[in-house]
Amino acid sequence: MADLTATRNSGSGHDLFRVTYRLHCPATVAAALAEDIALEQSVEVPSHLISDEIIRRDFMGRVTGIVSTTEEIHLASIEYPAHLASGNLSQTLNLLFGNVSLKPGIQLIDIEFPESFLSEFSGPKLGISGLRAACNVWGRPLLATAIKPKGSSISELARIAGQFAEGGGDLVKDDHNLVDRHLADFQLRVEACQTAVSQHAKASKACLYFPNLSGTLHDLERQAAFCVELGIKGVLVAPMIAGLETIRHLADSFPLAILAHPTMSGSFLQSGQGISHALWLSTFMRLCGCDGTVFPNSGGRFTFTKEECLSIAAAARQPLGRLKDCFPAPAGGMSFHSLEGMAADYGPETIFLVGGGLLGYSNDLVESTGAFRTRIEELFPNSSPAVAAGMNGRASHVSACEIPVAASGSLGRISAISPLVATSSTESFEARILKFLPQFRWEGREVTVYKQATGLPFAHVDRMELIGKFGESTAFDIRYFEIAPGGHSSREKHFHTHVIIPIRGVGQLECQGATMVLETMDIAYVPPLAVHQLTNVSREPFGFLCIVDHDRDTPMAP
Amino acid sequence: MADLTATRNSGSGHDLFRVTYRLHCPATVAAALAEDIALEQSVEVPSHLISDEIIRRDFMGRVTGIVSTTEEIHLASIEYPAHLASGNLSQTLNLLFGNVSLKPGIQLIDIEFPESFLSEFSGPKLGISGLRAACNVWGRPLLATAIKPKGSSISELARIAGQFAEGGGDLVKDDHNLVDRHLADFQLRVEACQTAVSQHAKASKACLYFPNLSGTLHDLERQAAFCVELGIKGVLVAPMIAGLETIRHLADSFPLAILAHPTMSGSFLQSGQGISHALWLSTFMRLCGCDGTVFPNSGGRFTFTKEECLSIAAAARQPLGRLKDCFPAPAGGMSFHSLEGMAADYGPETIFLVGGGLLGYSNDLVESTGAFRTRIEELFPNSSPAVAAGMNGRASHVSACEIPVAASGSLGRISAISPLVATSSTESFEARILKFLPQFRWEGREVTVYKQATGLPFAHVDRMELIGKFGESTAFDIRYFEIAPGGHSSREKHFHTHVIIPIRGVGQLECQGATMVLETMDIAYVPPLAVHQLTNVSREPFGFLCIVDHDRDTPMAP
Repeated sequence: MADLTATRNSGSGHDLFRVTYRLHCPATVAAALAEDIALEQSVEVPSHLISDEIIRRDFMGRVTGIVSTTEEIHLASIEYPAHLASGNLSQTLNLLFGNVSLKPGIQLIDIEFPESFLSEFSGPKLGISGLRAACNVWGRPLLATAIKPKGSSISELARIAGQFAEGGGDLVKDDHNLVDRHLADFQLRVEACQTAVSQHAKASKACLYFPNLSGTLHDLERQAAFCVELGIKGVLVAPMIAGLETIRHLADSFPLAILAHPTMSGSFLQSGQGISHALWLSTFMRLCGCDGTVFPNSGGRFTFTKEECLSIAAAARQPLGRLKDCFPAPAGGMSFHSLEGMAADYGPETIFLVGGGLLGYSNDLVESTGAFRTRIEELFPNSSPAVAAGMNGRASHVSACEIPVAASGSLGRISAISPLVATSSTESFEARILKFLPQFRWEGREVTVYKQATGLPFAHVDRMELIGKFGESTAFDIRYFEIAPGGHSSREKHFHTHVIIPIRGVGQLECQGATMVLETMDIAYVPPLAVHQLTNVSREPFGFLCIVDHDRDTPMAP
Repeated sequence: MADLTATRNSGSGHDLFRVTYRLHCPATVAAALAEDIALEQSVEVPSHLISDEIIRRDFMGRVTGIVSTTEEIHLASIEYPAHLASGNLSQTLNLLFGNVSLKPGIQLIDIEFPESFLSEFSGPKLGISGLRAACNVWGRPLLATAIKPKGSSISELARIAGQFAEGGGDLVKDDHNLVDRHLADFQLRVEACQTAVSQHAKASKACLYFPNLSGTLHDLERQAAFCVELGIKGVLVAPMIAGLETIRHLADSFPLAILAHPTMSGSFLQSGQGISHALWLSTFMRLCGCDGTVFPNSGGRFTFTKEECLSIAAAARQPLGRLKDCFPAPAGGMSFHSLEGMAADYGPETIFLVGGGLLGYSNDLVESTGAFRTRIEELFPNSSPAVAAGMNGRASHVSACEIPVAASGSLGRISAISPLVATSSTESFEARILKFLPQFRWEGREVTVYKQATGLPFAHVDRMELIGKFGESTAFDIRYFEIAPGGHSSREKHFHTHVIIPIRGVGQLECQGATMVLETMDIAYVPPLAVHQLTNVSREPFGFLCIVDHDRDTPMAP
């Protein structure tokens, strides 16, 4: 065992998760339980059944120490090779806590992430200073509220949002249960609230409105796209319901700040098992790209202790690789009179999310908001306008217009759409016309050699990419192929479909065993997995437009 | 309050969730805690702040009773209007347990769903009898195993899968931590294992191989599409990590059986809070479309009691609206000698998921599998071949080829691709050619009136849908528009993009403030949110192909 340890530590010391679990069990079984965890979470078979030395060395968890703090509480240190997480949060959770969640008395309380792992995550796009710049608020906590209750009319919700903005509030979010069955309803509500907030925000500073997104990734993308279109700067999401990797993908794909709601997080935070408050509500939220994390404030209607709340706030702000920090957003349990204590507890780098406290202060929401804002400014004298201007200048390099758009998969294409966003993909925002030229050529486009990674045989085929490979935001590509007399495309099949529109000469399509003649402006559809081939049996060139899905599989041999 | 109750119950008795929470608290606070839950989960504001009677009646949870079973344990009955769940599982969880998860001592133990809610869910596609038909196994539990450990070579994993099939096993799944970083690696592994299983399965009955899918919905879709292409019949997923609504969408979109793994479910199952085993691991799994649910067997290396295990099995099989049943799949803790007890406990409608027990029985996996299978057949004499044939006849109407494909959103289109699947959308599998006819018409396609829900003005425009609206599996639509002399399209903008290819006459495109002439075979790209309009200023018809994303937003006024 000593040899293996030496090999791994010397060769790949940066590529381990160093994880601490708190075990609640009698001292006599702590070592065995720690060993169980290390195996259960990695290879999931008893150690004696692992004969392969490479698996033992590179795929198995390993207990590196156990420290007992009381007779019943023990801290077990376990290392896992970081590659077991496959660079995604779904598998990270599966690895570090998946099956262990099913065993009582085990708490995941600390993770030392290797840089190689953290560098794969974009993290929060704005972080604390970026969100400050978007509001133009410096040196004091942001004042935030939620619009509710569900069941209120759109105009009533918009009125609340507008009055909060008018009173000088900084950020108003949807209640997390404002979920619409249809996208159209979401659009109506969000547009009304955004309009109200924009109209009433002060000239000197913005009030941001964060709508609540819900559903599958497809739903979230459609909702997010609409928000971007409206100029909205951020959204509320529920990572524990949507899935952390889903939120990470959303954060990476859209120029939107992300505020995390803790709904469904609580069972992981019950005493004696689960995941520590700091890891679950801050560290994992930063990994999935959240710029702010909402949690129930101590003294409110939930039971988090002040110590637990402060641990969340600390983890939201502390270094985590190159990831930006994240605003802790304690919610609930705040009244006008408790602002002073909150200020002392949490300091300026905080979002004060106030609901009932505002409503209870007076019957006039504009007035209540103004009173809370003024009180917060008194408690943080450095937030005076003069200082704020200076702060703003300092932070000008992180203005809200600079929300970076991460490179990503299919949605990366849609992500590059906001005219508010500075991105290298500005090409996709330009109208363009490819003028048709003699000899079936187009301005600005060149013939490329037709070839395929598959190695399938073909003959005398020219190919020209027209649309889809030049930054356009299309779900499809348009290409022009030209087959010389006697030539043919490769005989192949694939999951994606083709639409073929001949524009020059006459050709022949073999598809699903049948052979058909194709003439100019015919439109041919080749279905999924149909074996097909195009041939030119004429004496003239045969040219056709071919339209395919942008995201598609690789052709296979028949 | 009496009036409101009467109104709601008489008018919409079927549209309520009737929910039972088990409260662990002193009797003196039980009523207040129940009231808290009802408000927290619905309107999330104190009752006295709700002045709107419609909100009180139609949006607020309502405590209907509290029964104390001991001094410290109380069953609270709460009703919520079912529309608050918005017909999706994300919001259902949010509504029934979201914020409550953050409070200790509260367990969600029973939900009576209204038919109107259940009818929105497709549930398991195969259910118990459908999965039996796919294996051709009747009257006895299915014998299943998992391939592992992670770190094994592909050929080693394929060897395990193949030997299990050769020995007469029914279902072999990936270990839940077999997660690949790249789709190509997933494809290599899955293809190797599927090939091994297919080669070694007996002529008389199939052995099914279920690969593990992981990641975002986009990842799951790509992995699932590959599985369908290979002829694979089902997959393993982790609903608590991926998100329940994500799994529901996957289940609805692909002709694949779904087996649920319980990773990350455990913190909800720890004593004194959370969600009951039966609801969490069976009812919610059926709602998201799972045909089987894996859970740790009592007596294994986890701590579920036999009672808890049997409650999961019962909930998997009991009526739930029109949803199909779901195989309970107890895992672990099984040896050759414990099969008899397992058989007595669980009965035939079960998947016995055996890992270490098989490996520990002998050094020859083929032999071990055969021994387990024979022993199971002995314990269930009705599973003899003769009877099995009769059972098979009886169940012929639920053969594996009948996996229904639910109507769904964007991926519903891709879902209709497997040639193995009988579906009403077979149209998408047929090659077709729309012959070009005189006067710019196409065979089988008709001119429709150009109109828009938006009410934006236009003049003299004909429209013909060519591709995309007739069951084709394309990510795009192709239309032909023709504008008569003097006519114009509506001036509009939208998030989606256009590609315009004139094929008749000459037209004019105004886009982003510039005006450009369009001639035959030019290719124009209109970017996102660009205000644009097409006009015919000539004396001849101006006709063009317009290619757009199939899933797209509604045009807006400039």
